[in-house]
Amino acid sequence: MAEAIRHDKTSHQLRLLSDALDSGRLGPVRRLINTLSPAEIGNLLESLPLGKRVVVWGLVDPDDDGEVLVHVGDEVRESLLADMDPDEIVAAVEDLDIDDLADLVEDLPDTVIDEVLKSMDRENRERLEQVLSYPEGTAGRLMNPDVVTVRADTTVDVVLRFLRLRGELPEHTDHLYVVSRRHQYRGRIALAALLTHEPSTPINRLLDAEQPAFDVDDSANEVARQFSDHDWLSAPVVDDNHILLGRITIDDVVDIIRERAEHQALSAAGLDEDEDMFSPARRAFRRRLIWLGVNLCTAFLAASVIGQFEGSIDKIVALAILMPIVAGMGGNAGTQVLALMIRGLALGQIGASNVGELLHKELAVALINGVCLGIGLGLIVLLWFHDPMLSLVIGTALTINLLTAAAGGVLVPLTLKRMGFDPALAGGVLLTTITDVMGFLSFLGLATLVLLG
Amino acid sequence: MAEAIRHDKTSHQLRLLSDALDSGRLGPVRRLINTLSPAEIGNLLESLPLGKRVVVWGLVDPDDDGEVLVHVGDEVRESLLADMDPDEIVAAVEDLDIDDLADLVEDLPDTVIDEVLKSMDRENRERLEQVLSYPEGTAGRLMNPDVVTVRADTTVDVVLRFLRLRGELPEHTDHLYVVSRRHQYRGRIALAALLTHEPSTPINRLLDAEQPAFDVDDSANEVARQFSDHDWLSAPVVDDNHILLGRITIDDVVDIIRERAEHQALSAAGLDEDEDMFSPARRAFRRRLIWLGVNLCTAFLAASVIGQFEGSIDKIVALAILMPIVAGMGGNAGTQVLALMIRGLALGQIGASNVGELLHKELAVALINGVCLGIGLGLIVLLWFHDPMLSLVIGTALTINLLTAAAGGVLVPLTLKRMGFDPALAGGVLLTTITDVMGFLSFLGLATLVLLG
Repeated sequence: MAEAIRHDKTSHQLRLLSDALDSGRLGPVRRLINTLSPAEIGNLLESLPLGKRVVVWGLVDPDDDGEVLVHVGDEVRESLLADMDPDEIVAAVEDLDIDDLADLVEDLPDTVIDEVLKSMDRENRERLEQVLSYPEGTAGRLMNPDVVTVRADTTVDVVLRFLRLRGELPEHTDHLYVVSRRHQYRGRIALAALLTHEPSTPINRLLDAEQPAFDVDDSANEVARQFSDHDWLSAPVVDDNHILLGRITIDDVVDIIRERAEHQALSAAGLDEDEDMFSPARRAFRRRLIWLGVNLCTAFLAASVIGQFEGSIDKIVALAILMPIVAGMGGNAGTQVLALMIRGLALGQIGASNVGELLHKELAVALINGVCLGIGLGLIVLLWFHDPMLSLVIGTALTINLLTAAAGGVLVPLTLKRMGFDPALAGGVLLTTITDVMGFLSFLGLATLVLLG
Repeated sequence: MAEAIRHDKTSHQLRLLSDALDSGRLGPVRRLINTLSPAEIGNLLESLPLGKRVVVWGLVDPDDDGEVLVHVGDEVRESLLADMDPDEIVAAVEDLDIDDLADLVEDLPDTVIDEVLKSMDRENRERLEQVLSYPEGTAGRLMNPDVVTVRADTTVDVVLRFLRLRGELPEHTDHLYVVSRRHQYRGRIALAALLTHEPSTPINRLLDAEQPAFDVDDSANEVARQFSDHDWLSAPVVDDNHILLGRITIDDVVDIIRERAEHQALSAAGLDEDEDMFSPARRAFRRRLIWLGVNLCTAFLAASVIGQFEGSIDKIVALAILMPIVAGMGGNAGTQVLALMIRGLALGQIGASNVGELLHKELAVALINGVCLGIGLGLIVLLWFHDPMLSLVIGTALTINLLTAAAGGVLVPLTLKRMGFDPALAGGVLLTTITDVMGFLSFLGLATLVLLG
């Protein structure tokens, strides 16, 4: 129970906020909001219907505006930006870190982008332009060019004096990077090592030259995998000539992992992870219509299969009653295999070398399940319709469809991936179309052959 | 394309490994494996069928055994432990960090646990016992008791000398914690601050007293939320008396986030995130049978609804052909709403204060979709069966079922959550049962009234 209570901290804040909003007194709302972190404010704004969202957004401390914009989904961000003057937007975003600003900038109106660029000093403007020159979803786009570098031919004492002169370090700095005269990445020095070694220690001796650097065009997925496989907090990014360009920090990686998980969960239902829970009905409707339209076409395909057996159903109406069971069970079994495959593919755990054994195992599972469930289903049908041949037909059809579901569950996502499609997006629709068609076909076909043949 | 290539680094390793295994020369396999991090080795082991897995596991450097065990799912871990002597297990796990050891210990045989405890020094044994005294899924269980503390009434210089005497800091130390004489948590000092301030600076001036501490019984979900909302790298854990007990680091939080995402994706298909892709068919079958059995019961419920309209289907066989369309489209539409709700509930974004507006929006979307798709469906049915009344019936039934799906999509997960069930696990089954039943009932019922009444 403690779990449930703690877990609902956000919805507790949401309730307090809604009560305060409903009472019409905005003072308490403003005080409540300004005790929260930008991410928490973003989360709350995402939870609010459009009308209330605009009111609350107006009460957020302008100093937090930029960080809040970074922390909300694309669609919610659009609704917040629509409510701001160009001047407000410039003021909100100009102090953001380069990597956050790069993340936002493409959602901003062109005139605002120009203003933001003008308001920046030359160094930062060049950095932003550099980061923006790399495509989305690459290490170059994720990195922050603000890194502290030292040279190897010096001592801890010299570095300490340099750092004291420099003052603050960029956020989440856990290592300094060692570069050559030409700014080529050589390795890194842990802050902890600087603190635990005598001032006279040569930097060379503390150098960790093992830490590899990301190429600027490495994919965000690869970055996330390496970070979580190696438990890194930060990692350097270099270009083709091994020149140090910036560093990626774990907080961005956490965002990638969360977004990817949301993407997987929502794309299975034909939705986008940036979908606003409260997007206007008109807008939500259009997006869903496409998805439902695709599903309607596949439903007609299945219906046309049934249509082929009109005569059989006309003679034995029990077929109509029972046919959705065979089709539906195939869909359920296929979904299980598909879920395992999508996870395996996302982790890179499935390839030509093991797909054969995987298919073999899934077909074996389907066969045992088909026999067990087929016997169970046959017995119930026998009690219901008193026709042993009908029982035999439905049990056999179920087994055939479970085997189809297993083969489809393994091969459909694999084929989609090879063809360059996202298995999480299209896998479910395609697989249930196959199990529907095969369910109706095997059951009605067998029934026609055995019972009416 | 670069994306696809990079992303498949793991499956590339997998192929190399399989080729080497197939060739029977184990030398290259051993060399390949020992270039990988423990997490990567774990990932590869999870990708291997049982026979090959055991061979590769035998080739892993014994020094890595413990870390590899930490990085695999429960079921795969079991298969690896089954292949080790008690002595090997003790040697593998005795050097692990306390938090990792705590994670493993419950999967170990009792005799091995005794051996491990005996092999530890008293301080570490007490720390392990302390961590194990907190339930799984709490901050206490996630924390590592190994923290570096300092007192506030000193200077940077004194702390630097203390750290140089102490030597290495625990992994992922980004802050030192400041405690009172009674070891109560007071705040934290960034390593970066120690490096960038003059030796004479009083520690008091660098103290960040704002960083809150987790209660030892805070839930893992709450820990994950706070870490990602605040971009923390580490955070202290205290007991009821504010005594500092340990600290949680971001790498554990990344694991929680990944596990939770996998749990959500797999539990929708009635699977566990610890499921081994290559678990023996016999074992996999038993687990899936339960899930399919539940689905079989719900399928019978839907079939019994159809059974009520046996007479109508007997007269108009077109009803049998078309009825799965209405039921299936409801299921698809409901799944979309359910996916949004499950995300919203997981983020704490849905509560009593906004569920009304959410329901209102989803019903509006369903109504527009129902009218559009209903007209489309009606037209196609008109072309197929040349019966305007049948078109009217199916269009109306579709709209009714989409409205049912919208209401169910919002209310089913909410109700499940209130009752203490996991909406991601049971939501899909319950919702499609509702849309199946309502789909058949509305279409066959309306047809009986309008066409045969």
